[in-house]
Amino acid sequence: MRITKLQVHSIAIADPPLRSSYGLHAPYALRNVLELTSEDGIVGIAETYGGDAPAQALEAMRSKVIGADAYRVTGQLMSTNGDEEHGEAFARSQTYLVPGENPLDVAARTFAAIETACLDLIGKSVGKPVCDLIGGRVRDNVPFSAYAFFKHAGGGGTGADTRNDIYGEVMTPDALVREVKQLIDEYGFASVKFKGGVLEPALEIEAVKLLRQELGPEVPLRIDPNCAWSIETSVQVGLELGEELSSGGYLEDPASSLEGMSQVRNRLLARDVNTPLASNVAVTSFSDIPACLGLNSAQIILCDHHYWGGMRQVQNLAALCRVFDLGLSMHSNSHLGVSLMAMAHVAAATPHLTYACDTHYPWQSEQDEIVAGGRIPITDGCVSISDTPGLGVELDQDQLARGRERYAKLPYRKRDDEAEMQRQVDPTWKRVLPRW
Amino acid sequence: MRITKLQVHSIAIADPPLRSSYGLHAPYALRNVLELTSEDGIVGIAETYGGDAPAQALEAMRSKVIGADAYRVTGQLMSTNGDEEHGEAFARSQTYLVPGENPLDVAARTFAAIETACLDLIGKSVGKPVCDLIGGRVRDNVPFSAYAFFKHAGGGGTGADTRNDIYGEVMTPDALVREVKQLIDEYGFASVKFKGGVLEPALEIEAVKLLRQELGPEVPLRIDPNCAWSIETSVQVGLELGEELSSGGYLEDPASSLEGMSQVRNRLLARDVNTPLASNVAVTSFSDIPACLGLNSAQIILCDHHYWGGMRQVQNLAALCRVFDLGLSMHSNSHLGVSLMAMAHVAAATPHLTYACDTHYPWQSEQDEIVAGGRIPITDGCVSISDTPGLGVELDQDQLARGRERYAKLPYRKRDDEAEMQRQVDPTWKRVLPRW
Repeated sequence: MRITKLQVHSIAIADPPLRSSYGLHAPYALRNVLELTSEDGIVGIAETYGGDAPAQALEAMRSKVIGADAYRVTGQLMSTNGDEEHGEAFARSQTYLVPGENPLDVAARTFAAIETACLDLIGKSVGKPVCDLIGGRVRDNVPFSAYAFFKHAGGGGTGADTRNDIYGEVMTPDALVREVKQLIDEYGFASVKFKGGVLEPALEIEAVKLLRQELGPEVPLRIDPNCAWSIETSVQVGLELGEELSSGGYLEDPASSLEGMSQVRNRLLARDVNTPLASNVAVTSFSDIPACLGLNSAQIILCDHHYWGGMRQVQNLAALCRVFDLGLSMHSNSHLGVSLMAMAHVAAATPHLTYACDTHYPWQSEQDEIVAGGRIPITDGCVSISDTPGLGVELDQDQLARGRERYAKLPYRKRDDEAEMQRQVDPTWKRVLPRW
Repeated sequence: MRITKLQVHSIAIADPPLRSSYGLHAPYALRNVLELTSEDGIVGIAETYGGDAPAQALEAMRSKVIGADAYRVTGQLMSTNGDEEHGEAFARSQTYLVPGENPLDVAARTFAAIETACLDLIGKSVGKPVCDLIGGRVRDNVPFSAYAFFKHAGGGGTGADTRNDIYGEVMTPDALVREVKQLIDEYGFASVKFKGGVLEPALEIEAVKLLRQELGPEVPLRIDPNCAWSIETSVQVGLELGEELSSGGYLEDPASSLEGMSQVRNRLLARDVNTPLASNVAVTSFSDIPACLGLNSAQIILCDHHYWGGMRQVQNLAALCRVFDLGLSMHSNSHLGVSLMAMAHVAAATPHLTYACDTHYPWQSEQDEIVAGGRIPITDGCVSISDTPGLGVELDQDQLARGRERYAKLPYRKRDDEAEMQRQVDPTWKRVLPRW
């Protein structure tokens, strides 16, 4: 089943003004959509990080992909997937850098998009869902977590293209609780992640305590300040939230670096606080794992097929985590339905995925969805895996064209949350680590 | 693609009187062959460990396999594959026990056979080789190693069923060199493994030195005494063969247990001998890996899809080995062409397989081969992966029937090399570890 056509669609999608320690989400997030067409006219799709650089990296693979067999191209490209033995790309630890925006993981990201599109193509050609091509589903419903943000008012987009905002401004602990309740009402999430590192730690502690109070003792809570805190602050927050973050929750990347995380962990343990630390900043590639284990820096790894080198690498990572008694959760970036389904399929076929996955999906709009038939339902907090072949979705070419048009009009070609923060909120704002 | 029929064929195949520290190979080795037939009449096959117990374990899965989809049954059976989280079966370290003959790995072995037959079935239904269903081949030719044994005269089998013996008795260093040269002449092997633990260590040292002298400096040499040696003897042999086992070779399971191997390694390193230790005795499951790394017991793991839980688990193991800078080789047991092709396919799709694979295949006879068209060629030491769908082989039902007839006539139903040694060589013989 030879691949005869490769198309990369760079699109922009409205994104609300969400805050994190990186800064502020711009009015549009960027995505690239890959289409691989086989000689018999079947189309396999994938969605990945946006902007010009990821698109160019995919375009650069054109000569290797065109003419290749969809079943074999992943083997042929293995040496380019960022995991070749002892190669530079394998040792691509990216502590301090945003996953997916890092030149060091470009090889793994590019390979992952091609693998995903090939699996979709194969699945569509044989009439089987992707999860059943990569080992077989171990669950039919993949649980996702609510992903709450502090945010300014607005639903994303600009001018006539401005999106509706049902959440309003969320810049206080009370407003965050309201937002979480809205997310749970709408999607039925059974666990909650909250993006911290935005307000003073005391306010974020208050927000977590309020969430626990309002949601009851059973809902797992996670807070992720993306390294905004010093080791001292991380320990203080960990101590104050020792109870709230237990019951299946975790403390994600409170401080930066494997060494910093290790110190936080050890100091919490010394105070009998056993809240696990999770990471997708200190640990972003296989090459980080030995040091992570040696230092006990993180007890939970956040996988993401988009930048860990594809679905099978996520399964490899899961097997490794099981061996070393590490938990496994899933990272997310702003995305549409193609990525959501890919995340759900790999999660469905990964036995040792021990936490509900993250997803930004609720923050995107029906008006930007590129999946034919509209947005993927999230019911009782889960995405259902049906028997529909491949990823279970097709592209709406009109919607894709609108995404390309939005992209063409934008003045920026990569994500830069710091610059956006300066433009819209405070011209003097800098990302400072640790901030507190 | 529902599975409508499951058949298990218990067969016996002639096996020469090969020696190891376990004792003596009986005149017939035992294998089980699994056939899974789909509703549209396609047949997927696998070959696994022989005897009644493995056959019964496969039969016990009948109700779970019949009616299941070949793409999904591996996911459905995942909790039975000996790798469920923290379950008893996961913690199945089997130091001191023969791989494949151990009740602790029955779950992993049973799952592996079903996975292999399903992949063959899927490959045959979509017209694709198995290696290209599990990530895509990274090599078209899979290198195997010569696997030399001390042996008594005879080609295996009994009575009118006695097989030709082109190697004769091999019970001296000189004879072993002759045997190795015959194997290389016939198959073109580029590396050599020699099963030790049979003669006095001084004679086995002499054999390795003779091999190095006769084969030149380039051919990687391995010796595997299956734990016949004490730590002291292992160190002595390691020191004496420091040069001979370098150039890509290794010292395999000289002493028993992770602790014993670790002591051998440390004492060799202290004497500046860096020969890597390999293991398929101290390390036989994922649960052994953390202690192996902690103790630095083995630097090379021997995988085997037959008892590590299948092809995808071998890929997981390979990814783990790459992360921790461990080498990966492949273990073998007496087998026919179906197993050989399964070994070759998983090897083809496993980038981090860093050594030529072991195979007993040269020791089996054309007269026992169950693969239609006769024995698989090994050329220049390699098995070629073609574009033939599935494992690339079909069963010869007449040959399979002959194998069943031989099995029916045998007085034994499991491998017992110690009992065979007592029957044929020395009624007082016992497996003693360490022997020297």
